[in-house]
Parts: sequence; C-alpha cells; structure tokens
Amino acid sequence: MEKVLLIGIGAGDPEYVTVQAVNALNTVDVFFVLEKAAEQEDLVALRREIVERYVHEPVRMVAAADPPRGRDVEAWRAERARLVSGLLAEETGVGAFLVWGDPSLYDGMIDILERLGVAYEVIPGISAVSALAARHRLVLNRVAGDVLVTTGRRVAAGLPDDARDVVVMLDSKLAFTALDGEWEIYWGAYLGTPDEILISGRLSEVADEIVRVRAEARTRKGWMFDTYLLRR
Amino acid sequence: MEKVLLIGIGAGDPEYVTVQAVNALNTVDVFFVLEKAAEQEDLVALRREIVERYVHEPVRMVAAADPPRGRDVEAWRAERARLVSGLLAEETGVGAFLVWGDPSLYDGMIDILERLGVAYEVIPGISAVSALAARHRLVLNRVAGDVLVTTGRRVAAGLPDDARDVVVMLDSKLAFTALDGEWEIYWGAYLGTPDEILISGRLSEVADEIVRVRAEARTRKGWMFDTYLLRR
Repeated sequence: MEKVLLIGIGAGDPEYVTVQAVNALNTVDVFFVLEKAAEQEDLVALRREIVERYVHEPVRMVAAADPPRGRDVEAWRAERARLVSGLLAEETGVGAFLVWGDPSLYDGMIDILERLGVAYEVIPGISAVSALAARHRLVLNRVAGDVLVTTGRRVAAGLPDDARDVVVMLDSKLAFTALDGEWEIYWGAYLGTPDEILISGRLSEVADEIVRVRAEARTRKGWMFDTYLLRR
Repeated sequence: MEKVLLIGIGAGDPEYVTVQAVNALNTVDVFFVLEKAAEQEDLVALRREIVERYVHEPVRMVAAADPPRGRDVEAWRAERARLVSGLLAEETGVGAFLVWGDPSLYDGMIDILERLGVAYEVIPGISAVSALAARHRLVLNRVAGDVLVTTGRRVAAGLPDDARDVVVMLDSKLAFTALDGEWEIYWGAYLGTPDEILISGRLSEVADEIVRVRAEARTRKGWMFDTYLLRR
C-alpha cells in the first residue's frame, strides 16, 4: 500500500470526529475493520455510520475478526500483526484503520504498523479521557497538579500514595470497589453515545450503584466500555 | 446569558476542530476572547480563523485582556472570574469561549464558570497531549502501563521513582535539563501549526538542541507553547 492512516474517530459520538479526520477519510481507498466478537455489532455500526456520513465517494470496507486477547500479550500482538500484514498485502492505495478514541492511548495499531515497517500517519481523536471530562464538566488536574492515567490492573495493585487525580481505563474487574480512603468517582460508560451513563459522587456512596448499573448495561448490550476519574 | 459553551478547538491545527464543535460554533451569539499579552497576535488570529472558517452567520466577538498570572493563583483566578462575570453580564443568548486544546487539561475556564454558577456545557477538543502523540506517532502507555501527565514544576521537584512515561505541560523553566538517568524525550512546540517543531531522541543527546531551538523560536515568535513526553 502507498500508506496507511490511523484515524482517531473519538470516543463514541460520531460528532467527535475532527475536520482533519473527515478530510483524511476522503483520501482513503480501503477501510480495514477489525471486529471484536463482543462489541462487534455496535462498534462496527459506529464505524460504518462515520464512513457513510463523512465520506463522499463509495469506498471499499474490508472486515476481519480481531483475535481475542489471551494471557500471552506478545503472542496476541504478533498474531494481530500477521493478520494486518495479510490485509494490507491484498490492497493498494491509501488504507485506513478507524481507531476508537485516540490512537495514542491503550490502542495497539501503532505498535502493529511499527512492527510491519509500513508508511503510516496518525490522526488524533477525542480520547475517552477527554470525553469523560467533558461530559462531567471536569478539569482533570488540580492547580499545577498531576493526572495519572492508568488501568484497572494498576489500581488493583495499589495506587501511589501521592496520586490524587487518577483516570482509569480498561477496568473490567471493578478495581475501584476495593479502594479505601476518601475518594470521589466520576464514572462514564458508552460515552458520547445515546446509551451514555454518568454517575458521580463519593466512592463509598455510589460504588454499589455503579456496580449494579454497569452489570445491567453490560447484560443488555453485550459489551461495556467505561472510564472513570478517581479524585482524592 | 442563556448558556455558555466552552469549546475545545484543539491544540493548534484549525482542522483539529471536531464536527461537534463546528455545530456548537454555529449556535453561538457572541464569542468571548481573553487575550494574553505575549501570545495575543497568533492565538487570537487562530481563533478568528476558526470562527471565520466554520461559522456561517456573522457573529459578535468580544475581546478582553486576560489578567497576567501572578504568584497568588487564587487572587488571579478570582480576578479572571470577575472579568468573565462582567463580560457575561452585558450579553444575552448563547456565549462561547474557544479553549485552546481541551478544556479538561490545565485550563481555568471550567473553574471560572463553576464559581459564577453559570449554565454551561463543555465540548472536548484534541489536547496538546494527543497532538504531541500523533505527530510523533507515539503510544503514550506501555502494555497496561501508566501515563503521568504533569507540569514542569513537578518534574523539577522530582519525578516518582516508578514513573516511566510522563507527559509534561507548562514547562517554561526547562525542567528536563536537570534530569539524570536514562530518559528519551519526544518534544513538540507549536503543535499542529505551520511553525511546528518536533525533536526526539535520548535526552542526554538532544537536550541542548531543544534548549537552543526553543530559545530561538521563542525569540522569533514572541511566545512558546511546548509539550513533551519523557520515557524511561
């Protein structure tokens, strides 16, 4: 291929797409979609909506099943790289992957394209972090303070003593339920979509509600994508 | 006023504006611009360019001098809040402030509107963090790892021992020059603009170059806005 574009499409709302992304979308010959089993229907639908809404010429869309992530992260990454390599080998011109949120946070596509030595460009997108903050109308940092962006696994392993403002991604095991001390939580699921759920308050007072609402939504939709800010 | 919109316009490139922001811009009756003395010309020009490019109807623009930040942050915030309160009192309909980058990171407007008890909404924007990552084609986190977003002052005070991926904003005193140990740096100035400068490499090898290039650019343009990732 001539080049590959990694286009951040923002975290949920089709209107989070930037003008730069819209312009880039219209230079693309073929869109590649890696479908995850659980989230397949909704997220593929969002990508299709974005292509239909913003791309003025007919385009090719090529879908492939994204291999499930196992315990061995390195083997999984190598498998995904082989899959992408195979997809790229059969096409010409400008290819694109539409990346949920922002390609710079907890996304594997940059790593894959680096492994393959492909010519590529990155178009930034509205991250789930920015979407969460906007929907709760939060400033993430305190005056001149830090913001730690981390994962549920790290929260479970113990937060640093001096962490006061912590954005947590990828927390499928509800690590916040095990925290003690004085935390506030600002939680959001399906941010920017019609299914968006926002809950905030003292962690000790709203944790049970979040667990319940989250489980119900996950059952109803078949998948869950949530993010939250912890504030001490 | 009926309500106020805080519209994130992204970090530099007028094409970082989102479709949501464009739609919001077109509901606005009056744009407020707080002008900082040093950055005045370029940043006001960017805001005017965005309004002229994306807003289809003629609109009012009201400018006021942003008070310079002194040692007493609380007094400065209160003074800004009084200024904004005065601006809002003289207008009706939908007002908007265009916020550089993303209103959720190191920006004071949300705090001001909270103090004033005004009805407001936040439109997220491409942060300098996302722009930096995209332009260097970086994933900010390592596998399941943390990202610390912080300020130059915090870097100067000493980074936590376990910090491995650190995005630094607001570092006018070049705190990176005092770091020891094995760091890589990915530095960017005027991100997304025609004046963009990117330098990366081992900190020990490129720190002097960044200091020199930064000083030259700052003299030439009269202001500097830079951001960087430190990676251990």
